[in-house]
Amino acid sequence: MAKPRATLGIDLHLEPFGPGLRRGLTDALREAVRTGRLAPGVRLPSSRSLAADLGMARNTVAESYADLVAEGWLTARQGSGTRVADRAVLPPPERPAPYREPRRPAYSLVPGHPDLASFPRAEWLKAARRALTTAPNEALGYGDPRGRIELRTVLVGYLSRARGVRADPERVVVCAGFAQALRLLCEVLHARGLRTLAVESYGLAEHWNLVERAGLRTLPLPFDEHGTRPEALGSHRERATGRTLGDDLAATRAVLLTPAHQFPLGDALRPSHRAAVVEWARRTGGFILEDDYDGEFRYDRQPVGALQDLDPDHVVHLGTASKSLAPGLRLAWMVLPPSLAPEVVRHAGGPATSALEQLTLAEFLTSGAYDRHVRSARLRYRRRRDDLIAALAEHAPDVRATGIAAGLHAVLRLPPGTEQSVVRAGHWQGVAVHGLSRYRHPAAEGHHPDALVVGYGAPPDHAWKGTLEALCKALP
Amino acid sequence: MAKPRATLGIDLHLEPFGPGLRRGLTDALREAVRTGRLAPGVRLPSSRSLAADLGMARNTVAESYADLVAEGWLTARQGSGTRVADRAVLPPPERPAPYREPRRPAYSLVPGHPDLASFPRAEWLKAARRALTTAPNEALGYGDPRGRIELRTVLVGYLSRARGVRADPERVVVCAGFAQALRLLCEVLHARGLRTLAVESYGLAEHWNLVERAGLRTLPLPFDEHGTRPEALGSHRERATGRTLGDDLAATRAVLLTPAHQFPLGDALRPSHRAAVVEWARRTGGFILEDDYDGEFRYDRQPVGALQDLDPDHVVHLGTASKSLAPGLRLAWMVLPPSLAPEVVRHAGGPATSALEQLTLAEFLTSGAYDRHVRSARLRYRRRRDDLIAALAEHAPDVRATGIAAGLHAVLRLPPGTEQSVVRAGHWQGVAVHGLSRYRHPAAEGHHPDALVVGYGAPPDHAWKGTLEALCKALP
Repeated sequence: MAKPRATLGIDLHLEPFGPGLRRGLTDALREAVRTGRLAPGVRLPSSRSLAADLGMARNTVAESYADLVAEGWLTARQGSGTRVADRAVLPPPERPAPYREPRRPAYSLVPGHPDLASFPRAEWLKAARRALTTAPNEALGYGDPRGRIELRTVLVGYLSRARGVRADPERVVVCAGFAQALRLLCEVLHARGLRTLAVESYGLAEHWNLVERAGLRTLPLPFDEHGTRPEALGSHRERATGRTLGDDLAATRAVLLTPAHQFPLGDALRPSHRAAVVEWARRTGGFILEDDYDGEFRYDRQPVGALQDLDPDHVVHLGTASKSLAPGLRLAWMVLPPSLAPEVVRHAGGPATSALEQLTLAEFLTSGAYDRHVRSARLRYRRRRDDLIAALAEHAPDVRATGIAAGLHAVLRLPPGTEQSVVRAGHWQGVAVHGLSRYRHPAAEGHHPDALVVGYGAPPDHAWKGTLEALCKALP
Repeated sequence: MAKPRATLGIDLHLEPFGPGLRRGLTDALREAVRTGRLAPGVRLPSSRSLAADLGMARNTVAESYADLVAEGWLTARQGSGTRVADRAVLPPPERPAPYREPRRPAYSLVPGHPDLASFPRAEWLKAARRALTTAPNEALGYGDPRGRIELRTVLVGYLSRARGVRADPERVVVCAGFAQALRLLCEVLHARGLRTLAVESYGLAEHWNLVERAGLRTLPLPFDEHGTRPEALGSHRERATGRTLGDDLAATRAVLLTPAHQFPLGDALRPSHRAAVVEWARRTGGFILEDDYDGEFRYDRQPVGALQDLDPDHVVHLGTASKSLAPGLRLAWMVLPPSLAPEVVRHAGGPATSALEQLTLAEFLTSGAYDRHVRSARLRYRRRRDDLIAALAEHAPDVRATGIAAGLHAVLRLPPGTEQSVVRAGHWQGVAVHGLSRYRHPAAEGHHPDALVVGYGAPPDHAWKGTLEALCKALP
């Protein structure tokens, strides 16, 4: 969590704490005066300038100043601004005050989290009971490194029906979450001699770090208003000197994509780009790692089918229960091309995750509970998305939401140069929210738009209204 | 599974199949005659010599020969031995017969597996229900890479009480099985610059392979009748030329041990060796990875406490629920030295295994169900061990069992040169059993004794008597 720093002539570290935003600022300023960090006579910035710096409303700062004037810590005089009052600074207390954590935001709009409060506990327990009652003894043993055959079989049916994936249980590997699957794949690609992996210009740093730890350098693909541009792959040009990102991209033989719903920007990969990347993979023998993290949640149009359907020999399809159910289950899966499956299975060594949990998910899918849950979650998230759009129209008409046809998050486009201050303002309003820049690859080229990535999946129902209000207060 | 080959003048591949040993051999020989692989007039080896070659009783071979003489496939004449009868060889069938799998052994004495039939399903479900009902919503999220605090807290209490481990929940990491924990540790040690890991002369090839894949060469420590000799660690000698295993061992800074119950040989690390290895770790800043895989199952003496207690700053204590409950749960844990914990947690990235499963184990431990289960399993395994010893005394008095004070397996010492044939004989008797040589490190030096590693944990209760009988038939 970034700690807001306000420049008050001196480099003053303000840590707001306690309930309420005005109260938090007031306490922080009072403490700074009391301990001498703000010396008597020092002139404070104008409420407008401090508000901009801290990313909060000007009124809040003005009211905070007024409180402290009333208490005698500050003085305000027409023409001379607000200054620290001339009064004896108290000696520091004998024992240091206990360290106080900066206030944790009460609400979270951090993307990538489903609404955990709506996890279908009763249904899940029912499935767990059935799984535990009917599991053969051997299910409790070490078992197939690919995971339980019951789950792999059910997944093949589900993925074909819901995502258009062409699979066969022999080539499905159950994993302990997407990250474990990605790590396994990268280790296998590294063992094959690959040293680079093309990625999108926007994505998750956790994934890039994991890829790099497996020995593959991540190379961001170019990105423009039409989305990720895969034509940089395999378009090798001879160059006299130097080696550019473009050269490295041209030579890479694997790419990680979120084709159905770019994370976090929210667009689907354009049909012509889908065709181009598959054509590249065929021509070069390359592999496409398709991160289908929230394929279940599509609202306005026909579902975007899995890219894997275009070429099961070159696409690894990766799915997860982290968004549709809960990340805590640590259940994900991959559908592997025949040429890659044996190596991945050998490298996996043993099954990644609990056999009972796998059998429970198989039961959950078979009984129809999964479909019911996804349907009801889709309705709930869609309603939240509509609430968000309506709230923006009313309170922040200049903010445009994009990437809203699917998923659990939206991207709110902000005026240039305001991203950081809006994120801070959100924090002061008690809402944890991420700026888009946090999701930009460090080596990405081109223009970076200012935006927020707003995950509307995370808040529980009872907190949703409050979260949305707090967000709107932080928006310009 | 090794396929027995009998040398009958020609190199004849005999694949016994079908129920029963005699029947299997008879079918295989008949098929060989029928298809012409054994030509008319060919003299078969004596029943004694074929029995020795196949690792089965002489009588079984003699009876099989008699059956085939009665059927007319063989002829037996005093002084001329048993020969293939002169009769028309049938032409091969138009279509090749469907491939028949070699018969899978009906019983397993492969070590490392608990009795899965006695997994306490009802108690586990009860704990799962409680866990699922009481878990806070946030437990379903991504969570702490170390795993759930509830489980880590309960584990610290349990490990202190049951194994003498000195821990603190901050330094406990829950893993998806021992192998995942070992992989994580090796990757961290590799990132620290280590390139070797000392191991015991006997252990699991799966673990050595995993260590090597993480970039650490495995170096076997010397081994004699007193067990693993750690004094090769850190005893550097200057040498004019060449680089020996001893030199590499002297330079290594990490060692993987099974101090409470050497796997598979079954002895505890001697007190003087325990002290020596800890002294080495302190002197060199080295790390000891303590694989405490079956510490719960000790029968005759006081439990051997964890080595970690001697020096929590240099010992990583690794435990697992795979032996005490079931491998299918994929639940293990490590207690890390303070100097290693942050790196391991950072490298882990996210939690390794299902939060619900972790909360279920925490509940299972808290309610006392774990202790009850371990106590009853200990009684059952101890009774099996006693059955095994009694059966050996009666049927194979020359076979000595060692490493029997603890655990789920025993080592049966065999006459020199007989290990492979006894393993094959076991197979013919329908028992999967492993020879000790399978657990020997390829670079291990010194004498290798012939022995079987008999895991008495795996068979379900109803099959135990039959398994034991079948084993005894295979013993010399």
